[in-house]
Amino acid sequence: MSERSEPELTLADLGESEILARIFPRLPESSATLVGPGDDSAVMKAPDGRFVITTDMMIQGPDFRLEWSSGHDLGVKAAATNLADVAAMGARPTGMVVSIAAPATTSVTFMEDIADGLRDACLELAPGCGVVGGDLSVSTVLTLSVTAFGDLGGREPLLRSTAQVGDVIAVVGRLGLAGMGLAALFAGERAKARASALQAQLAPLPPISQGVIGALAGAHAAMDISDSLVMDAGRIARASNVVLNLDEHVIDDLSGQLAIELGIDAARARQAILFAGEDHALLMTFPASVTLPEGFLAIGFVDACEEGESPHVALGGTSISENGWNPYAGWNGETS
Amino acid sequence: MSERSEPELTLADLGESEILARIFPRLPESSATLVGPGDDSAVMKAPDGRFVITTDMMIQGPDFRLEWSSGHDLGVKAAATNLADVAAMGARPTGMVVSIAAPATTSVTFMEDIADGLRDACLELAPGCGVVGGDLSVSTVLTLSVTAFGDLGGREPLLRSTAQVGDVIAVVGRLGLAGMGLAALFAGERAKARASALQAQLAPLPPISQGVIGALAGAHAAMDISDSLVMDAGRIARASNVVLNLDEHVIDDLSGQLAIELGIDAARARQAILFAGEDHALLMTFPASVTLPEGFLAIGFVDACEEGESPHVALGGTSISENGWNPYAGWNGETS
Repeated sequence: MSERSEPELTLADLGESEILARIFPRLPESSATLVGPGDDSAVMKAPDGRFVITTDMMIQGPDFRLEWSSGHDLGVKAAATNLADVAAMGARPTGMVVSIAAPATTSVTFMEDIADGLRDACLELAPGCGVVGGDLSVSTVLTLSVTAFGDLGGREPLLRSTAQVGDVIAVVGRLGLAGMGLAALFAGERAKARASALQAQLAPLPPISQGVIGALAGAHAAMDISDSLVMDAGRIARASNVVLNLDEHVIDDLSGQLAIELGIDAARARQAILFAGEDHALLMTFPASVTLPEGFLAIGFVDACEEGESPHVALGGTSISENGWNPYAGWNGETS
Repeated sequence: MSERSEPELTLADLGESEILARIFPRLPESSATLVGPGDDSAVMKAPDGRFVITTDMMIQGPDFRLEWSSGHDLGVKAAATNLADVAAMGARPTGMVVSIAAPATTSVTFMEDIADGLRDACLELAPGCGVVGGDLSVSTVLTLSVTAFGDLGGREPLLRSTAQVGDVIAVVGRLGLAGMGLAALFAGERAKARASALQAQLAPLPPISQGVIGALAGAHAAMDISDSLVMDAGRIARASNVVLNLDEHVIDDLSGQLAIELGIDAARARQAILFAGEDHALLMTFPASVTLPEGFLAIGFVDACEEGESPHVALGGTSISENGWNPYAGWNGETS
């Protein structure tokens, strides 16, 4: 027999329990766990008698491509997008359950990389948050489904429906960066794209801890910007029955900075700031009397709907149409 | 132009928010909801300061086939399998989040049928439990991911690791029925299969409320039988470091009853009772002093491991090898 390198172990080579035995030791433990992985359910602490819970699925094709994303990237992104939804309630993430469906030919190493990404995202973004359960399945389409949960620490949750007229609109985290990263990937320009844009798209690290900080500072409303600043601001506007009036000078400043950072023209940067998604920045509204916490940038004011006017988003006082991500229509590779 | 019937609306025809607007009104509300669907996360009550949480994914192909399952069936099964994992902790299910990835060509009616199945399972199996959030994605492989959670009502959770020597082993719910339903489907014999077996496989209604009843009666340990009686009993045996000794006369009686119900021979029924999965009966151990609650059947005793003996499952005192469902090896259509 000729010598050859050892073929890589795949999921088909191992049973589910053996794969789990390799993956679970790589995952972070949650400090809120009473009963961890390995039973029919986990048991978690909910110290104030409540918990927040959110779920999000990532599908190979519409949500990621394996030419672009490593297993580690996918783990980071699956965790980060869900943690952002917990943070957007003003809550501290305490744990998550993770289901992964993968082709039987997937290497065990790749699954371990996903686990490492989940771990690194939790350690970096939400210390104390861990993976407390999950499920492994076989599918021809690699699919990650995460459900994350968290603790409000006795505070009221930050909703989309509680923005008040006179509030300052503020954002913490980046805008437009993930969208420009995706545009570079679609254009086949990964080599010359900025690392910051690629990371924002492939393995985002949104400002999770700022969710609690914003809540403690007295925020009225919050959400995470997953679809686009304008589209998600529109959701707050409708839920709160108000107008979110963005300051065009601030948007111009942000656009200029992004243009310089990425070496693109300002018009393109402005489109990305307003209409690109997946940055998972936190959008909040605060009473005007509040001193914004460090890292938050004021980007506008909440106005009342005038007589006969519907809730909407305005830029410099002029209504701006909402655009953003629709998973069934699909992303065309452009940021506008 | 020739007359033709209106083409059915598909997911591609509607935006995500319009699809959600059609689905959410069909779903049951949870009585434990503080903030329901529509924000970044839901907020749930956890009255005793804890919650149990479990997740399970169903994939078109390995887990179901659309020639066999209706949308309603899939909704029922996705809910029931997760509710069973909550019940197996001795907890009352309070809610679930549901992610569905479907081809863009999927009809909106089919998605509504899934929602109706989720609703009917909750209403039938766990009144007060509802769907509090979810996610819709597009995928070429229909995928349902459910995370369910529940309330222990101040009790200790029922674990796999807390069976005690001298306990009575009891089961509530059916054994072997779902496996025989699957065997009939694989054999192309749906038309002559018993309705009870097909329902157990396609739209199971496991004894969810018995989880709390067993806990209140004083059960020491519990799990749900998803892979097979022998395989799952083996998990309790190893977690508790004991021998689960099944009574062969009781197994013979159950086999005889199943054989008569389904019109199959007793040997085949016995294989299904011992080695077939997906019935989601609850397997519990109780102190010998306990009068078993109605519906529970004693099927054996928990024995100590003798000197040098590993934890295992025995039938009539003789060790029996564990077999059951391995998602990466696949089901070959047989029940043994």
